Amino acid sequence: MTGPITTTSHKPLPQQAGRCCGLVAGEVAFAGSGPGDPDLLTLKVARALQEADVILFDRLVSAEIMALAGPQAQLEDVGKEGFGPQVSQEEICARMVAHARTGKKVLRLKSGDPTVFGRLDEELTACEAAGIGYQIMPGITAASAAVASIGQSLTQRGRNASVRFLTGHDMKGFADHDWAALARPGEVAAIYMGKKSARFVQGRLIMHGADRATPVTLVENASRADQRVIETTLDRLPTDLAAANLTGPALTFLGLAPRASAQALSDLKMELA
Amino acid sequence: MTGPITTTSHKPLPQQAGRCCGLVAGEVAFAGSGPGDPDLLTLKVARALQEADVILFDRLVSAEIMALAGPQAQLEDVGKEGFGPQVSQEEICARMVAHARTGKKVLRLKSGDPTVFGRLDEELTACEAAGIGYQIMPGITAASAAVASIGQSLTQRGRNASVRFLTGHDMKGFADHDWAALARPGEVAAIYMGKKSARFVQGRLIMHGADRATPVTLVENASRADQRVIETTLDRLPTDLAAANLTGPALTFLGLAPRASAQALSDLKMELA
Repeated sequence: MTGPITTTSHKPLPQQAGRCCGLVAGEVAFAGSGPGDPDLLTLKVARALQEADVILFDRLVSAEIMALAGPQAQLEDVGKEGFGPQVSQEEICARMVAHARTGKKVLRLKSGDPTVFGRLDEELTACEAAGIGYQIMPGITAASAAVASIGQSLTQRGRNASVRFLTGHDMKGFADHDWAALARPGEVAAIYMGKKSARFVQGRLIMHGADRATPVTLVENASRADQRVIETTLDRLPTDLAAANLTGPALTFLGLAPRASAQALSDLKMELA
Repeated sequence: MTGPITTTSHKPLPQQAGRCCGLVAGEVAFAGSGPGDPDLLTLKVARALQEADVILFDRLVSAEIMALAGPQAQLEDVGKEGFGPQVSQEEICARMVAHARTGKKVLRLKSGDPTVFGRLDEELTACEAAGIGYQIMPGITAASAAVASIGQSLTQRGRNASVRFLTGHDMKGFADHDWAALARPGEVAAIYMGKKSARFVQGRLIMHGADRATPVTLVENASRADQRVIETTLDRLPTDLAAANLTGPALTFLGLAPRASAQALSDLKMELA
């Protein structure tokens, strides 16, 4: 290669997020539904819901969002969960490809943003192998909605110049320098699917010098009517998490407490435990 | 504190991202416009644009998005740029508060997501000091739209269990363990406003053992009609960046190359330099 390749978009690419038309017959659109509140759908994805012939959707896509599908749409719950699909990944890929081959406009709807812990690549590979065109439509990721609800930023001058998105499933593979970086004062991270790994994360961070008083906030069911916010510290994380008995998807923010004014405006604070 | 504080949302909080009503007279809504394509607006922010009495918007909010403002809206370009506001931060805060005090529905519109490098906190503090209520409406951050356009995920099983968002402005403060973590094979990071720091970042990463062949992709004007994608490597980053002569906002993805099929579908590849 003698120089950089530049892709211009005078002709929009089928898979470009930006300037694309709607859905294409015989192709697949991978789209993010956001974290649950239908108002957090993008205009593009809202339109795709109305246009699609077939919608393959994950367990965490809310019923209120699925209610926006067009009357012609065939809805298929592929029920993929954090700890493994109910419908196997192979089955999801096979169905997606089969529908596209019959000339359908296929919408593969994932909770949040398909590019963030969405296992998107396996499904793109299936499209490629079958010669099926695709596009990717971004969505609001849960961390973004959750942090807004506690009146905080993911980044802040003088506090943290970077933010990290992690998944609780994969943190066992972390190296020492990852933990050291994460344990530093002021560091902010959003842990997806972190409920099961809370005690492990706490132990590693404290081992790497993190302050036990580091603020930690859990946001369950971000953006949904049943959203709950649990304010705790690194020291109390496993205890408070157990006491809270969270049943929905939860984000764990390391290094962030709810902003005081966001708390003060709530007249529904409760003391747990 | 004897236990975690739980905030339920049976009554929606004014500042909750999720279940809020529209704009409130005498309050400020901080909203993300996404990276430029109006189709990437959320339904919530699209509605806020129609309802607002006053919209204070940043330089990077696209003209196509501002065209969606209601006819009653007073539009104020506060022109904040990456390297410092044209209108001072104090002035922006003062105007925002003054409009809210006259009972207006104030929309403070920021490019991308206000919680990601949006300097949101200073403006929230101004609202608090003035006793003005606020809410935060998330937006699609540029990294999300940009990565979708190159057919990639920010995270991928077996490659990277975490992704980091950084700003080129602040990386001088990075510690050795930050660079070590970032230099590791398979690591993925999105650098916002990274054009000026490209050579510095390259030098530090190579010093910390990063492979010179690490893929790097630059996405200029993500999601806009004039989006450009520059595929390069860590080794060639400063050279190719200079040759590309980027004038718009650009994201730098460390550790990601455009997916082959995303490239192959383009019939407009060009060789630069």
